[in-house]
Amino acid sequence: MTNPQATTGPRPREQRRADTLAMLRSPARDAWVSTASAADDGTAEPYLVPLSLAWIDDRVVLALEATSRTGRNLLAAGTARLALGGTRDVVMIDTDLERSVRVADAPAEIAEGYAAQADWDPRPGGEHDVYLVLRPRRVQAWREVDELAGRLLMRDGEWV
Amino acid sequence: MTNPQATTGPRPREQRRADTLAMLRSPARDAWVSTASAADDGTAEPYLVPLSLAWIDDRVVLALEATSRTGRNLLAAGTARLALGGTRDVVMIDTDLERSVRVADAPAEIAEGYAAQADWDPRPGGEHDVYLVLRPRRVQAWREVDELAGRLLMRDGEWV
Repeated sequence: MTNPQATTGPRPREQRRADTLAMLRSPARDAWVSTASAADDGTAEPYLVPLSLAWIDDRVVLALEATSRTGRNLLAAGTARLALGGTRDVVMIDTDLERSVRVADAPAEIAEGYAAQADWDPRPGGEHDVYLVLRPRRVQAWREVDELAGRLLMRDGEWV
Repeated sequence: MTNPQATTGPRPREQRRADTLAMLRSPARDAWVSTASAADDGTAEPYLVPLSLAWIDDRVVLALEATSRTGRNLLAAGTARLALGGTRDVVMIDTDLERSVRVADAPAEIAEGYAAQADWDPRPGGEHDVYLVLRPRRVQAWREVDELAGRLLMRDGEWV
């Protein structure tokens, strides 16, 4: 993610998009995954955990227990907001759940792709795990205040 | 945050608590702040942004526009889940909103404390900003898988 131009002003959009894709494709990459649940009294409760991701066919793929809190939230609400990178080299991705696949039933593209990029493989002992395939809807990337303008890289699922 | 024992096994609880407090007290510290809102159809929607924090009198203090999405979510639902550190040196803090104070009306302890620790000061031009004082309810800290056991450091607002 080093960018020699980082100290000389905001990155142009092409550079931010390239940096974002490099981050999404890098090995052993974690995302902060925020999801939410609705409480009985109508209020919403946030949840947040770090999870390893894979970037497969323009989708973010997570692997987790279907009954974990993140799994239940995502399967119920269908959305997650992800952060990659540090707080001063941020990629924010709003996603929609496209599909969930039991680990035991997953096509090779997903299972092999996840194992190749993440630093673990859910298949051994993963009978309760699922891959969640998330479609990016909105992507933003910025480092410091001077990059807040121009941070929108994807809107409605299309790179801008 | 360097800990020479990190590679020799899980940190004992005292060390994790000391590391956590050191992180909370460090200058220019950002947190990933997750909040949630309830949609009209009853589903819950997550939100997530990085924000600078201050640690004042055993509380996490944020400064932000009251009408920002995080501000509205927190004022409505009263809870936020915060992450500090990296995804492999994690501090997770579940918080309850204790009070909100308009920047213009804030006591010196909060205003000076926030400006001293964060790398910005909301007071100039902050007529729409508030300090949100968050009471930690639950704190967990871990680095790698070997630290998942023993990650609970605070429960119901009390250090364990």
